Parts: sequence; C-alpha cells; structure tokens
Amino acid sequence: MSLDLAAIRAAHDRIRPHIHRTPVLTSARLDAAAGGALFFKCENFQKVGAFKARGAANAVFSLTEAAHGVATHSSGNHAAALARAARLRGIPAYIVMPDNSSRPKLRAVEGYGGRITLCAPTTAAREATCARIVAETGAAMIHPFTDFRVMAGQGTAVIELMEDIADLDTILCPVGGGGLLVGTAVAAKALNPRIRVVACEPAGAGDAAESFRAGRRLPIDQANTIADGLRTSVGEPNFDLMRRHVDDVVTVSEEGIIAAMRSVWETMKIIIEPSAAVPYAAILEGKVDVRARRTGLILTGGNVDLDALPWMK
Amino acid sequence: MSLDLAAIRAAHDRIRPHIHRTPVLTSARLDAAAGGALFFKCENFQKVGAFKARGAANAVFSLTEAAHGVATHSSGNHAAALARAARLRGIPAYIVMPDNSSRPKLRAVEGYGGRITLCAPTTAAREATCARIVAETGAAMIHPFTDFRVMAGQGTAVIELMEDIADLDTILCPVGGGGLLVGTAVAAKALNPRIRVVACEPAGAGDAAESFRAGRRLPIDQANTIADGLRTSVGEPNFDLMRRHVDDVVTVSEEGIIAAMRSVWETMKIIIEPSAAVPYAAILEGKVDVRARRTGLILTGGNVDLDALPWMK
Repeated sequence: MSLDLAAIRAAHDRIRPHIHRTPVLTSARLDAAAGGALFFKCENFQKVGAFKARGAANAVFSLTEAAHGVATHSSGNHAAALARAARLRGIPAYIVMPDNSSRPKLRAVEGYGGRITLCAPTTAAREATCARIVAETGAAMIHPFTDFRVMAGQGTAVIELMEDIADLDTILCPVGGGGLLVGTAVAAKALNPRIRVVACEPAGAGDAAESFRAGRRLPIDQANTIADGLRTSVGEPNFDLMRRHVDDVVTVSEEGIIAAMRSVWETMKIIIEPSAAVPYAAILEGKVDVRARRTGLILTGGNVDLDALPWMK
Repeated sequence: MSLDLAAIRAAHDRIRPHIHRTPVLTSARLDAAAGGALFFKCENFQKVGAFKARGAANAVFSLTEAAHGVATHSSGNHAAALARAARLRGIPAYIVMPDNSSRPKLRAVEGYGGRITLCAPTTAAREATCARIVAETGAAMIHPFTDFRVMAGQGTAVIELMEDIADLDTILCPVGGGGLLVGTAVAAKALNPRIRVVACEPAGAGDAAESFRAGRRLPIDQANTIADGLRTSVGEPNFDLMRRHVDDVVTVSEEGIIAAMRSVWETMKIIIEPSAAVPYAAILEGKVDVRARRTGLILTGGNVDLDALPWMK
C-alpha cells in the first residue's frame, strides 16, 4: 500500500458523509502581528473535536470484513474518532489509552461507546497492550498514524483548505506520529509542487526534527510537552514519506505553545488544544518566515480540560 | 426619533464596511440535547469581540458634526466599540468605565485609543461622571443603550441571522440595558410578525423581568451577576419598546449561566462571555420551550478574562 493524491481523494469521497467540512478562519489582528496572511483550518470544529475523525472514518469504512471490530492505542483524539467511526458502522472498538490521558478525552471515548483499557504512557506499553487485545478479540488493528488508510484520511483536510484558499505559499502542520503530516504533505505537494510544507513540533518531543536532520529515524520513549497529541515519535512509514515530501521541521518551546494557544483563544475566540497551537507558536517564535506570504495552518483539535488550562496557577 | 425596520436597514448600510458579517454556527450535539434546532449568531467573532461594534459604528458614522468627539459610560464592550468607531472616524472618545471592569475590557479600550475615566460601579456614578466630561469637552454623548442610533445598529445582527436561516420560530436575546433587545425585537417582528422574541436575563439583575410583569419600569441600582454586560437596568425608551415588541422575559440562575457557558465552550469550541451564555442557560433551565422548534440565539460577545474563568477555584 502507499499514499498518493488518488488515495486521499478516494478517502475524501468515502468519509464525506461522516465528517464536517470545517471553516477556514482569518484574523486581521493576527495578520498584522505576523506581517502576512494566515489561514486557519479549523479542525477543532471537526466531529470529535479533531482532525482524527477523518483518518479513523476512512480506515473503518475501508474495512471489507469488519465483524470482529477495530482496536487501537491513542493519546485520545484518535481513540474517540475510532470509537465514533466504529459505532457508525455498528462494530466494537477496543481502545488502549495512556493512564495520563485528559479526563475529557477519556469521557469522549466512553461517550462514543469505546471499550477502554488503560496502560503506562510509553510507546512500548501501548503497543504490547494493544497487541494482546487484538490477539484476544480478532479485531482489526487501526494504528493511529502508521496505517495508510489513516494517513489518507488525514490528508483530506488540506485538500479542503487549498480548495477554499487560493495561492497558499506555505502549510504549517503539527507533527507527532506523522499521520496528519504526511497526508498533508503528499496532498499539498501533488496539488501544488511549489508549496512549502513545514512540520512544527514541540522541542520537548523533538524526535521528528532530530530524525529529519540526521537522515534516520531517532524515536524517543518519553516526551515532555503540554501538547498531548504530539508526544509520540514519528512512525517508520511516516518518516520515509516525511523525508520525501516535507521541506523542513521546526521546534517550539513550551512557553511558545502556551502563548500561541492563549493568543488564538483571546483574539479569534475559538478553543484550540495545545497541540493545535504549535504551528502558530512557530510563527510567534520566528521559526518560519511568513512575512508577505500566504500561510495555511492546520488547527488540529479543540479538546482541552477546562479545569486545567496551562495558564492557571 | 424612533426605531423601525427602515432605520435598522439604514444602519446596516452605514456600518457594513466597518463590521464583520458573523457566521451562524450549529451543533448536532446541542440540538439533540435541546430536542430542537438551535442557530447561534456568533457576535463573539464580531469586531471588538461583541455586537456593540454595530451600534457604536452606527452612532459615530451618523454624526454630522463630529469635531469634539464622543463620550460614553459602559461596562466594557460598548466602550471598546465606541473607541474603535471614533478612531475610524478620527475623533476622540472619552470613556467612563466602572472600576470593577475586567482587565481585558480595560486593555481593549486603551488599545483602541479611548481616554478612560474610572468610576464607582453604579448607574448614578456612571451618569454623573459622564455628564461632567461631556460638559468639559463638548463631546457628543453616545449612551450605550438608550440612544436610538445605537439601538438601530444593534438590530442589524438579527437581520443577518434571519437572512441566513429561514423559518425561525423564536429569537432568544440577552437583556441588560435593552439596546440589543429592542433592536432585535423591532427588526425580527417587522421581518416576521409571527416570530417570538424572548428576552433572557440573569435573575441577579432581574429588573427587566420584574418591570415587564409589573407593567412599569423598576430599575435596580446594584446587580449581582457574573454576566458583566447585563448588570445595568433597562433604559426608559428601551422599556417602552420592549413592552410593545417583546413576547416574554425569562430569568436564569448564576449556576445556569456558568453551565451554559462551559457547555458552549466544550461542545462548540468557541469562546463566549458569561452574558452571551444567558439565552442558552434559559434553554438548559427549561425557561423557554424550544422542542421541535427552530430557535436563534444571539451570542453577544467573547471577551473574557482567561485568568478568572468562573469554574476556576
């Protein structure tokens, strides 16, 4: 299997009845501060509150034999998305989640009927627990980012963004496992080979940037960042696609993520989660040049714990 | 002077270059909970973060002799809106604000170049301070809600809502001083005489409901509500128009306002201020019947102090 524009367009046709076409918002004030035009693709308004609804729906509705259900491990949004897609198709979803997942994300998975198993917050623990559950139930494993059906689904967001906004120069996309990133990069470059795709990553989970510079995958087992959707290391197939289709990877500080998140809340009056603030943090910290350019940013999700905001004492 | 649909349409033509046409958002989840279709007019995305941009712009751009500037007293959003409109026209704005105004609202007025004078948080203190400043400067007084130009400007929001969404049965609108309420009611009833307009008010500032039942204006001097935009009593011309054009006034609890605000943040991923949550609180508390109906709610603003959210301990 592989990832190309045809696969992403097929995914778009498959999932269209099950997702929102999310709006693209702009802010005169943020444009003035950045010195360029910024276009925010609002996947925080997506079903389940995150772009993950796209990839999960594509994976579940691509299954030819779905009787035994689906299983996955996820820091949260993929989990809710897979539970929702499985319910839409009428099959069980077995979800392995790290035991430091935020309460709203756990509640969301339960709310969609997902069957949760908690585990330690490491990649190794997640994968072992999930493998056991797949063996026990016969469910189809839907990996949150190395699955090509998931990558194709995630790539549908940038197609909508580029349909709505002409002549973008740059796309800024967060990177965790790299599912959204490679779906975005493959689609964007196929639609416009001159567009720049820049991955944005918390320095506290900076494996993608280090791997990109080193030319080989350097996964980390423990990440230290508030951006809970980006704590995982880049997957193997994701890294291969990233090397071919992504122009640069930049990192941002925790302070930058919090400042960016707060600025978007205060100025745009929309709720985004810390992971979604990482591309705007890259602009605030001067890591990407957006002056006199047209830049698209993917706001990946809006699921936050309102009792534990990062600027609360 | 009076208020009718022609005046509101003229206001719309006058202010259109200076305001956003804000989106109307919906939520499948909130519809399911309410048992009816809800349409949220997002004035939290308006210039200065509130519908007040409409009335202030209409007042300022209606002035024939503007040389000495404008003056007002306001709990915050009208202040920012008047400062912004005055700057657009190149005249000074003198703003009297209660000394318990939230920091973001004070900063916003300063940011638009408004000249602030603080006073005690009572209607009497505001009016006396403002009268003194008008006498000293020769500025034109633009009252936040009894000015007919302001009422006409505020009424433009519901015109957009009814253009975008056909066949609304009910409009829910917060009431403080009553500028938005009467603009909304006059425009909505002129466009569709069968539509119901229900004013929604915090019980802790419940003078509009009491006055409506008594048939005479019963202002209060001190209000006790988190909804800082709704602490003022209904104005005299506003009460007269309210009696003729508004179908009902309902009150909600402080707990209801906070629950409604939080529910909109969590579900719709948009930031609204407490005053804007009052109509949805009326639905949550069963004060209006929206089942199997199409109900429009005006989300009046999104200016909150992110360091002092009502659910923080």
